[in-house]
Amino acid sequence: MYVSSEQAGDVGILTLTHPEKRNALSRALIAELMEQMEVLAAARCRALILTAGVGARVWSAGHDINELPHGEDPLLYSDPLEQLLRAVRHFPAPVIAMVSGSVWGGATDLVLSCDIIVGDDSCSFALTPVNLGLPYNTAGTLNFIRRLPLNVAKEMIFTARPIDAAEAESWHILNHRVPTAELQSFTLALANRIATKAPLAVAAIKEQFRMLGDSAPLQPGIFERIQELRHKVYKSRDYVEGISAFKEKRPPRFRGE
Amino acid sequence: MYVSSEQAGDVGILTLTHPEKRNALSRALIAELMEQMEVLAAARCRALILTAGVGARVWSAGHDINELPHGEDPLLYSDPLEQLLRAVRHFPAPVIAMVSGSVWGGATDLVLSCDIIVGDDSCSFALTPVNLGLPYNTAGTLNFIRRLPLNVAKEMIFTARPIDAAEAESWHILNHRVPTAELQSFTLALANRIATKAPLAVAAIKEQFRMLGDSAPLQPGIFERIQELRHKVYKSRDYVEGISAFKEKRPPRFRGE
Amino acid sequence: MYVSSEQAGDVGILTLTHPEKRNALSRALIAELMEQMEVLAAARCRALILTAGVGARVWSAGHDINELPHGEDPLLYSDPLEQLLRAVRHFPAPVIAMVSGSVWGGATDLVLSCDIIVGDDSCSFALTPVNLGLPYNTAGTLNFIRRLPLNVAKEMIFTARPIDAAEAESWHILNHRVPTAELQSFTLALANRIATKAPLAVAAIKEQFRMLGDSAPLQPGIFERIQELRHKVYKSRDYVEGISAFKEKRPPRFRGE
Amino acid sequence: MYVSSEQAGDVGILTLTHPEKRNALSRALIAELMEQMEVLAAARCRALILTAGVGARVWSAGHDINELPHGEDPLLYSDPLEQLLRAVRHFPAPVIAMVSGSVWGGATDLVLSCDIIVGDDSCSFALTPVNLGLPYNTAGTLNFIRRLPLNVAKEMIFTARPIDAAEAESWHILNHRVPTAELQSFTLALANRIATKAPLAVAAIKEQFRMLGDSAPLQPGIFERIQELRHKVYKSRDYVEGISAFKEKRPPRFRGE
Amino acid sequence: MYVSSEQAGDVGILTLTHPEKRNALSRALIAELMEQMEVLAAARCRALILTAGVGARVWSAGHDINELPHGEDPLLYSDPLEQLLRAVRHFPAPVIAMVSGSVWGGATDLVLSCDIIVGDDSCSFALTPVNLGLPYNTAGTLNFIRRLPLNVAKEMIFTARPIDAAEAESWHILNHRVPTAELQSFTLALANRIATKAPLAVAAIKEQFRMLGDSAPLQPGIFERIQELRHKVYKSRDYVEGISAFKEKRPPRFRGE
Amino acid sequence: MYVSSEQAGDVGILTLTHPEKRNALSRALIAELMEQMEVLAAARCRALILTAGVGARVWSAGHDINELPHGEDPLLYSDPLEQLLRAVRHFPAPVIAMVSGSVWGGATDLVLSCDIIVGDDSCSFALTPVNLGLPYNTAGTLNFIRRLPLNVAKEMIFTARPIDAAEAESWHILNHRVPTAELQSFTLALANRIATKAPLAVAAIKEQFRMLGDSAPLQPGIFERIQELRHKVYKSRDYVEGISAFKEKRPPRFRGE
Ligand code: NI
Ligand code: NI
Ligand code: NI
Repeated sequence: MYVSSEQAGDVGILTLTHPEKRNALSRALIAELMEQMEVLAAARCRALILTAGVGARVWSAGHDINELPHGEDPLLYSDPLEQLLRAVRHFPAPVIAMVSGSVWGGATDLVLSCDIIVGDDSCSFALTPVNLGLPYNTAGTLNFIRRLPLNVAKEMIFTARPIDAAEAESWHILNHRVPTAELQSFTLALANRIATKAPLAVAAIKEQFRMLGDSAPLQPGIFERIQELRHKVYKSRDYVEGISAFKEKRPPRFRGE
Repeated sequence: MYVSSEQAGDVGILTLTHPEKRNALSRALIAELMEQMEVLAAARCRALILTAGVGARVWSAGHDINELPHGEDPLLYSDPLEQLLRAVRHFPAPVIAMVSGSVWGGATDLVLSCDIIVGDDSCSFALTPVNLGLPYNTAGTLNFIRRLPLNVAKEMIFTARPIDAAEAESWHILNHRVPTAELQSFTLALANRIATKAPLAVAAIKEQFRMLGDSAPLQPGIFERIQELRHKVYKSRDYVEGISAFKEKRPPRFRGE
Repeated sequence: MYVSSEQAGDVGILTLTHPEKRNALSRALIAELMEQMEVLAAARCRALILTAGVGARVWSAGHDINELPHGEDPLLYSDPLEQLLRAVRHFPAPVIAMVSGSVWGGATDLVLSCDIIVGDDSCSFALTPVNLGLPYNTAGTLNFIRRLPLNVAKEMIFTARPIDAAEAESWHILNHRVPTAELQSFTLALANRIATKAPLAVAAIKEQFRMLGDSAPLQPGIFERIQELRHKVYKSRDYVEGISAFKEKRPPRFRGE
Repeated sequence: MYVSSEQAGDVGILTLTHPEKRNALSRALIAELMEQMEVLAAARCRALILTAGVGARVWSAGHDINELPHGEDPLLYSDPLEQLLRAVRHFPAPVIAMVSGSVWGGATDLVLSCDIIVGDDSCSFALTPVNLGLPYNTAGTLNFIRRLPLNVAKEMIFTARPIDAAEAESWHILNHRVPTAELQSFTLALANRIATKAPLAVAAIKEQFRMLGDSAPLQPGIFERIQELRHKVYKSRDYVEGISAFKEKRPPRFRGE
Repeated sequence: MYVSSEQAGDVGILTLTHPEKRNALSRALIAELMEQMEVLAAARCRALILTAGVGARVWSAGHDINELPHGEDPLLYSDPLEQLLRAVRHFPAPVIAMVSGSVWGGATDLVLSCDIIVGDDSCSFALTPVNLGLPYNTAGTLNFIRRLPLNVAKEMIFTARPIDAAEAESWHILNHRVPTAELQSFTLALANRIATKAPLAVAAIKEQFRMLGDSAPLQPGIFERIQELRHKVYKSRDYVEGISAFKEKRPPRFRGE
Repeated sequence: MYVSSEQAGDVGILTLTHPEKRNALSRALIAELMEQMEVLAAARCRALILTAGVGARVWSAGHDINELPHGEDPLLYSDPLEQLLRAVRHFPAPVIAMVSGSVWGGATDLVLSCDIIVGDDSCSFALTPVNLGLPYNTAGTLNFIRRLPLNVAKEMIFTARPIDAAEAESWHILNHRVPTAELQSFTLALANRIATKAPLAVAAIKEQFRMLGDSAPLQPGIFERIQELRHKVYKSRDYVEGISAFKEKRPPRFRGE
């Protein structure tokens, strides 16, 4: 069991419960999470809270590095994390991320795919593909462009620096920064407020936000050029080095090859 | 008379003057407003201030609920408020909203369609379609996406919570928050500064902002799916309930049907 | 010599060194700058700092007004400044603007085309086409839309008001505002951090940001209408007046013709 | 039973078998057809033939007029015929229409949604929304634009004239016109040839044709204007007159109201 | 008087009547034509025939060369011919070109902008910008792409060769080729048939064809590059040579400069 | 030497001269071809003829199967044939394919990328990716959609059937079908006619055709789904089988896996 699910009135709460692996987004954890989301959607939940619990040290470590493929596109459309991100955006009610602790890599993507984010002072967010030499994909890049000031998105992704709660607030990653002691009650109150609103209207508006957010049309030739660039990255020696260094817990030495 | 118009040098000032109906955006008020805008455009006004007066308790209550249709799309392209929003964006000079008091529903759309917003400490902004079960439309959703951080736009619209002046400042709804006593002089100075600039260049740049802001192309099939979603909303029992509850001044009970 | 270039490890530093002309972006200066950028790209520089030196009074005065054409489109695709803006966006590593002093007109475009901006308390930014009656172009307008809150972009461009360091920080123009004494060390540390990351991944992600940022497709008919609007502006008497007034150091008198 | 299904090797054959109602595309017939398509898709059929039998006098009469709604959009995304057209385009193998006899209204849409069309000398095709005053939709109009020379599509739709086999051949509606006696064997040979090809490659290419064929992105404001135009049509007296005249088998009298 | 107008029942007929100037599309002729179109639209005409009369030797010679500007974009959005082409596409009923005789340059654009074309054996069509060195524009190029097989459009435009009636039929320029003696009656019958159909539905469908036909969105940067290319053409010596040669009735000598 | 080049006045002629390998589009042949194209472009050639000589039995066999990669995307942006197709479309003057004999696979792409095609009675065209299980790409599919009636493109690609000269004429693949004895003189006359036209205007128009032809924008998520579909194809056993069967000159047995 990697995830626990509960329903409080019209509000669903999904909690990541695998701290021994720092809630890494393994296939197994993602499968369980998506299954529980379907249960809550079927129960006509009107708001969903996604959390790792108040006071967690690590919200989630992100992608399970052991599951990344070698010499292949690690971010295919069918990749479990990509499926999860789409499931969050397609969930028929608002999804609120409630965050204590650090959020890493793909888990930051997950949190940024939620509709609303509430964090306490311990929360932090890092985007880390350049630590691994991972060829980040276009749908993911678009997610950042829609969600963050452009220069901030670039700084986060080019430096892989964790952003603390104060910065996250001033850069609008957080909707609200609240004391840890109030995190749960504040978030529940927000979710309960949404749950009193007209759910069909909420769902139709969320879907319009999604469709418009996904609108960044590119000509096929442009896209095929991007795929080639990404192909070079996941075939590079640097990608191998990035993964190895991570596993050996040493700094990588990248050579641009 | 719902609107008073005056011209101070190259600056036009339009004031909503119907406090007994909380400046609700009725067909009659909108018609008068658009007529005055045409007069000021013809007079080659170089900046336009749109206000309900300094110290107003309510800037505007938004859509006149009594004029919303039943069981039909309430936000058709030809809806008077939709026409007004387009008129503001097409006005050939910058439009500055000067705001004291609370702004509700469609009036928040109106203010956010202005080029620049200046408010005092009393101003607040609420987006309320989910209180009524109103099937918000795509052009309107796009307006928010262009204007606000995405998660903030979602929180405003999913909670229908009024945003106070301090939040409105930190979330960039306001260009400037100034003391009530200085609201008028500050806004006039801003408008007068713009009025000294090259008006053809200003108009051409405003038009380019508009065209680019409207660019979020969607495939026809996607759009037809959205129309169907919206159709379900305005045919729903919840929409009837939302309107009734509003008129009866009681909280609605939505059932998602 | 208008530009000095140095390389510190994997980080390149380009410094504008023409204070007698307030680092105006003349053809000559731009040619030198682009040449040095190519050298640093060939040297596989992993981050680039663009600066006018710590403590400069003017970072750059922008376009060299004497080089603007009369009665012709002054912002053609092949214009040297337009070429420079594209070169910055296509540079295969992140470009960081390090800013002391005031930044004017086209130089603000240049700084906003950099990936990250760090400034001290003396920095300020002004967008000035409406002082000249210059028909700003669509690619440039798009650059602002992508980079700044929409209402802020409009205020900057419609008022031509210089934005000081504090405002620039709160409106996310700056990634970081640091004391002048720390400007250099802070920026170098940031650049050096980026230089340790996987360079192919960094370059592929930067390119995806660029492609997505450029995505605002318009139908040909819309664009041809915009070109006509701009044509009217650069054929106008006001454009002649704007240029003359600037050269004669007097306020322009615009008549909208 | 409105449809019979058979499978010959890797080729599926679906035959409309309701001549007493001229194979009108009623909800019941469509439901059966879509069910059989799913069965054949699950059986990994490599080509599908859709026919009303060799020698049929009427291939299909199109929409069942009795099922069209009054005063509502008759071509919503969820309309059964719209669902069927999408099912044909999404079918994971090529769909070949084999046509004897006349094809009317929505049935012509259906045939034109097939990948390949083979007809004999008796076949004819008419597009008839203007006989009813039906507000044809954008996805359907796009289908014609992709499939026919533009002026021909317009003539067909503005005149509602049946196009005979010779014209259908010269305007590329038909891939092949063959004698009635050879219609079945010719079409089967074509389907069997396709069935020997690499099915994953065929399916991936069909999907790319579909995605590209659906690409005609429109700005939301444009689409909302089109919806309003269509709204006026389905609320018009002419639409009522068109339906009545059809049922009473008399020519309609349209007044443009 | 350059144009005669008549109305036969619900069908309008506009005839070019300036054979001494070969019906060249001068400002004066275009103004008259557009004025008559407005009259017929106001009279709620349900189909419009545009002709130069049965048996004309020249349908129209195209642009009036004497009115083309020097060293400026000759195809601005506001150019009278561009306005006429848009008026034809926006006319609220189908426009049928009825053609005897040769059609040249911009007049071929005009005919191809009509919804349906009927010609007799004497008709021919030439696209001639490369005879003049005229920088053809994107909206016009799009018109050809939508209307003609791509390779045929290119051959017509790169060779400037007149296409005779037989070729025009086989390449789908013509909807119908009919004997001269039947041209009028055939075309009138076609127009009258359209005039019996539901006019609101016809108009809404025509508008959807137009919107979809105009959909070929380009990124602003691409468009600005195209404008630069065109700018080089209309500033070239070859453009001057093309115009001079035409006026002097001698073959031009182009040098690619 | 795989290619011979000659220049006749302003017309360049490139002839494939490697019949022993049926002019297969190997890296070596493509490199030579592109080199010669650059020479002719530099010589300011105003029209280019691409041929395998009059009377050739095989114009070209297409991709050199021995050079296709295993288990990798065989149609990356940087693939030599993809580069060649782009070079033809970017060539600054019209390219005319002059065709005797059969054209296979990627060579049909090449011919269809030319601006104009002239063939004799011996010419034929086949599109063969489904014989190999090759995951055809989006830019290529778009090329067919722009160039051929949609149902014809689908039949060609789903059946891999060679289309003979008569069909190629009626389906507008050919601009002209001429007797073998006149093929050379006819094509030269056509090229020479183009060479007398204004070359800057011709080049600017060709570029506009290209930009508009490339316009089929897709959202990033759609494209990433297509890439996944294609990925499954080039990783499939069927792709291995297709290549093996081709080399062993036996029919493939595809299993859809
Ligand atoms: Ni310049
Ligand atoms: Ni902010
Ligand atoms: Ni044809």
